[in-house]
Amino acid sequence: MSTPIVSIIMGSDSDLGIMSQATEVLKEFGVPFEVTIVSAHRTPERMVEFAKNAHLRGIKVIIAGAGGAAHLPGMVASISPLPVIGVPIKSSNSIDGWDSVLSILQMPNGIPVATVALNGARNAGILAVNMLGIADKQLVEKMVEFKEKLKNAVLKKIADNDAFDNP
Amino acid sequence: MSTPIVSIIMGSDSDLGIMSQATEVLKEFGVPFEVTIVSAHRTPERMVEFAKNAHLRGIKVIIAGAGGAAHLPGMVASISPLPVIGVPIKSSNSIDGWDSVLSILQMPNGIPVATVALNGARNAGILAVNMLGIADKQLVEKMVEFKEKLKNAVLKKIADNDAFDNP
Amino acid sequence: MSTPIVSIIMGSDSDLGIMSQATEVLKEFGVPFEVTIVSAHRTPERMVEFAKNAHLRGIKVIIAGAGGAAHLPGMVASISPLPVIGVPIKSSNSIDGWDSVLSILQMPNGIPVATVALNGARNAGILAVNMLGIADKQLVEKMVEFKEKLKNAVLKKIADNDAFDNP
Amino acid sequence: MSTPIVSIIMGSDSDLGIMSQATEVLKEFGVPFEVTIVSAHRTPERMVEFAKNAHLRGIKVIIAGAGGAAHLPGMVASISPLPVIGVPIKSSNSIDGWDSVLSILQMPNGIPVATVALNGARNAGILAVNMLGIADKQLVEKMVEFKEKLKNAVLKKIADNDAFDNP
Amino acid sequence: MSTPIVSIIMGSDSDLGIMSQATEVLKEFGVPFEVTIVSAHRTPERMVEFAKNAHLRGIKVIIAGAGGAAHLPGMVASISPLPVIGVPIKSSNSIDGWDSVLSILQMPNGIPVATVALNGARNAGILAVNMLGIADKQLVEKMVEFKEKLKNAVLKKIADNDAFDNP
Amino acid sequence: MSTPIVSIIMGSDSDLGIMSQATEVLKEFGVPFEVTIVSAHRTPERMVEFAKNAHLRGIKVIIAGAGGAAHLPGMVASISPLPVIGVPIKSSNSIDGWDSVLSILQMPNGIPVATVALNGARNAGILAVNMLGIADKQLVEKMVEFKEKLKNAVLKKIADNDAFDNP
Amino acid sequence: MSTPIVSIIMGSDSDLGIMSQATEVLKEFGVPFEVTIVSAHRTPERMVEFAKNAHLRGIKVIIAGAGGAAHLPGMVASISPLPVIGVPIKSSNSIDGWDSVLSILQMPNGIPVATVALNGARNAGILAVNMLGIADKQLVEKMVEFKEKLKNAVLKKIADNDAFDNP
Amino acid sequence: MSTPIVSIIMGSDSDLGIMSQATEVLKEFGVPFEVTIVSAHRTPERMVEFAKNAHLRGIKVIIAGAGGAAHLPGMVASISPLPVIGVPIKSSNSIDGWDSVLSILQMPNGIPVATVALNGARNAGILAVNMLGIADKQLVEKMVEFKEKLKNAVLKKIADNDAFDNP
Repeated sequence: MSTPIVSIIMGSDSDLGIMSQATEVLKEFGVPFEVTIVSAHRTPERMVEFAKNAHLRGIKVIIAGAGGAAHLPGMVASISPLPVIGVPIKSSNSIDGWDSVLSILQMPNGIPVATVALNGARNAGILAVNMLGIADKQLVEKMVEFKEKLKNAVLKKIADNDAFDNP
Repeated sequence: MSTPIVSIIMGSDSDLGIMSQATEVLKEFGVPFEVTIVSAHRTPERMVEFAKNAHLRGIKVIIAGAGGAAHLPGMVASISPLPVIGVPIKSSNSIDGWDSVLSILQMPNGIPVATVALNGARNAGILAVNMLGIADKQLVEKMVEFKEKLKNAVLKKIADNDAFDNP
Repeated sequence: MSTPIVSIIMGSDSDLGIMSQATEVLKEFGVPFEVTIVSAHRTPERMVEFAKNAHLRGIKVIIAGAGGAAHLPGMVASISPLPVIGVPIKSSNSIDGWDSVLSILQMPNGIPVATVALNGARNAGILAVNMLGIADKQLVEKMVEFKEKLKNAVLKKIADNDAFDNP
Repeated sequence: MSTPIVSIIMGSDSDLGIMSQATEVLKEFGVPFEVTIVSAHRTPERMVEFAKNAHLRGIKVIIAGAGGAAHLPGMVASISPLPVIGVPIKSSNSIDGWDSVLSILQMPNGIPVATVALNGARNAGILAVNMLGIADKQLVEKMVEFKEKLKNAVLKKIADNDAFDNP
Repeated sequence: MSTPIVSIIMGSDSDLGIMSQATEVLKEFGVPFEVTIVSAHRTPERMVEFAKNAHLRGIKVIIAGAGGAAHLPGMVASISPLPVIGVPIKSSNSIDGWDSVLSILQMPNGIPVATVALNGARNAGILAVNMLGIADKQLVEKMVEFKEKLKNAVLKKIADNDAFDNP
Repeated sequence: MSTPIVSIIMGSDSDLGIMSQATEVLKEFGVPFEVTIVSAHRTPERMVEFAKNAHLRGIKVIIAGAGGAAHLPGMVASISPLPVIGVPIKSSNSIDGWDSVLSILQMPNGIPVATVALNGARNAGILAVNMLGIADKQLVEKMVEFKEKLKNAVLKKIADNDAFDNP
Repeated sequence: MSTPIVSIIMGSDSDLGIMSQATEVLKEFGVPFEVTIVSAHRTPERMVEFAKNAHLRGIKVIIAGAGGAAHLPGMVASISPLPVIGVPIKSSNSIDGWDSVLSILQMPNGIPVATVALNGARNAGILAVNMLGIADKQLVEKMVEFKEKLKNAVLKKIADNDAFDNP
Repeated sequence: MSTPIVSIIMGSDSDLGIMSQATEVLKEFGVPFEVTIVSAHRTPERMVEFAKNAHLRGIKVIIAGAGGAAHLPGMVASISPLPVIGVPIKSSNSIDGWDSVLSILQMPNGIPVATVALNGARNAGILAVNMLGIADKQLVEKMVEFKEKLKNAVLKKIADNDAFDNP
């Protein structure tokens, strides 16, 4: 695979099940990526190094998933000049996911995180492609096609399922 | 001003107070932008036209603010191939802002919105600059400087305020 | 079946399990209906066409079910002059259903959605019959009988179950 | 005024400030209505009588507003065969409005209430007009015009306000 | 059994599993009771009759359980001069129990309901005994013994379980 | 005043504004009462003594108001055999009153607290009268009259206010 | 084992599964401890005695776990001069854990409880060790090593799992 | 002042109003402290340096206040072996304080933060004194006296205020 331009990081290997949905999207769009664990709480210095260097290594977008008091996306965003997409993960002992959502979303002025839905790693991948389209017209075209496919899948379900009319 | 590359839209002119914080950031970074009202509920066809054409007019990033059952960011994201940043606005009669936050954040698979904090229009502007940096190295450098300024403002407050030590 | 006067739409075929409870009610009351998928996010133009034409095709009431950031009921209500009944569906990755409830209920002034309980598709069907009774006295009579049956079912349970007294 | 076809009821005269927004809409559309207090908790027998007789007096739609543990809309819906629109009101000592919203919205199977947004009395009036359109084509046409006016008001704001572009 | 002095009512036979915990407590304390279904929404007139007559039949305390938009306890309290204990039940399609809790607890001034914990039917039974103690000294003594037994059960667990010290 | 039979306690003198609404009701019904501060957290031993002795001093019902992590009602209920009515108070720094509501309502099996609405001290007084009616027929009659007065006040408002019809 | 310096208490033996995670941590750090049941609601006098004497018996830190309307940690903190760590436990019939969290966390001024995450007994144990380090330099060193081990466990997972890169 | 043993840090000088309540307590107890700004998001490297060195400089307890997506307490706790007390602050644009509470409280296993109530800086100061008592018997005695004073202040209010009885 060519040099990665998206870096997918997560606080724990237990997040891999959810976060691999982001890798699948990037494969579909042919975007080179890397995947690793960067724990804000257990490897804080690794996190600082990661965030300082990502843009120097050619990374263009960071996707960070974390659960509970989820500090990884916001902390990486505080250091890196790159856009950071945050994926709130509903971990065990989460209070219904509210903890991860609020600790990623409610960043103070100056340090945004582009937050997606709870467990929304697939959407994080798509959003990364949206962003990369700023510098790559082919990705914009692919995104237009992708939306066309979403539409056609709906139309096919209507056509194939006897429960549905097509007025 | 040169051709806008960021489009800032909002559901109502009552959102302008909040959303103008996004325009201020873009001015600081020298990013050309446009500002208008596009109401998902009162001008749905204008919204569809806007979303279909934005990338054809040279827009690279859309910032959409809305309150209550806030459908504008998600609906624009469903049509446009561009990255859409959603700003949940705490409108009057909002249930503490939860309505705008959840109806922007919790998008289904396939249609992401890059959601920022409640009333976080300033952060939406910064996130747009983060994204534009993908195609513009100067913006990345400016963002590095911007973070340096945030830091220096903190250090100055420590130095200037007798309430604070600097251990 | 005669020309449908109620249109039951949903954002995804995964909503069919819940939404078929609305179709059952309409069958009980002998109200002709149609069922289809109209996705606000994956088929936005189909949605606009649907909403523009429904009243021209003889539809009198629209029932729209959707989950998560549920924009379908509100967007259809923004275009169609018909009453729109919204059914919040508790989808997977929902934050306990709050997202669907709030993004359907909290519509801005000018564009109401008649919202029913979480997963309340059966009640959506009954509410459609309530509305149709405005132009059809027989449906009002049937509704009076329906309430009588609800009462009698309770009284029968009291009579049949040894756990209950009837003071 | 001619015989009322919409009945606007509320649990307390302190709700009149909010509920009068429903009367204004009905006046705009020329729909005859009545306004009164029917308290589920302080006048339960009046409530039962009201609910039993409304459809016999020619009422077609009931709009019921209540705050806190708001039982009025659901109790009236349990007795009357008419469509009941519920307006959750944020009363003093309310827990942020959640109490009124949930005690109106979450009705059990068999007894729907058409719930609108917190303090959404204006939308309750519009929804009543949507419903009355089932039996009155002129109201459907007026509703189409009403939506046109909403759109034009937005377009005028864009034209008149220097803060906005019209791309 | 002698004439009942506590009446245990519930909105649906599906609540019997929870509500039978109240009957067990009353048996333990030797308090005569009755159990029946009184649905606010499906048998509103039966409810009014029940509430008007309960104190005339010798009932001293009413325990009412209901789920969702739970109107039964508050409506009975609006009519009867007796103390009404409300048991919020977490029904299917409940929004985490918040709907039943808030629609029972948040009664307006003038009409209290003595609300216990979610699914707290056992505590409703104990609270009824607390109240009946106002007119029956023997029940006060039994309650003192009951608390002694709660204490002794804890002490026995400490003594019997090797995991616990008794410092 | 004769020997008090209701004891109104509160965690802090800052709760007096709310809790005096309970004293007003008891005066209206002619029920003798006492008022004092018993802080679970600042005077825990006074609280234990209070709770142990209240029923020995002739008290029949305890009303306890507290805010935040409100332990007073539940702790008193754990010691006293009397019925304890809990009034959740929305103190400063409360999280919207949820803290007081939940820490009073959600008592474990064995130790009920009769919880009323947030800031619902007036209802606590009425509930105490409901309970005292178990041993005092005159209070039952007064309560029937009280409900009559509530009804008449509503009817008078309808008659006096031009905004209201009386259909 | 030597004289305990940490006392782990819980409201019920059903909390033992969660609370034993605190004992495991203390064993790992070689800190002597005791474990027992102290129920605020079923053994209030035992609780008072426990809280009064703990510091006289050589206890330095108290860890208290409880669910629902969780009064144990706050009540012990109101009496003992020792630091009290509160563990909110998600009991059955809990409203998603919010009740235990808020009734432990939201203590009034003067009486703090050091609250950890929902079901966070393991963290309570670690926090106790953090505190004991104030008087024991060896524990500080062990804590530095403990954090090193957390880091190395992450690095090993990166090295061992083919899904992860190490950029 | 002698060498500080408590370090009070906050994310922004706007938090000083709340956080100075912690400094007041420490003055009352004669505990030497320092106060400074350490922003997790604007000065991340200063934060890492601070957290690495605090225990080497003689600091025994860290008190960290922050609002919104409040990462400061948890991030410092991830690096320092000292006990960290977190103060959730209700900042402007907070969602009712839930964001700060949850992003401080819900730390993952391995990295506890001793969380106090929303805006509970005074309690943070008291908790620090509780902790320091582990190594300083005089502070334990002062804490016993402090609790005595809290009690006496309550008793004085009862004695001085005519509204209160002292049964």
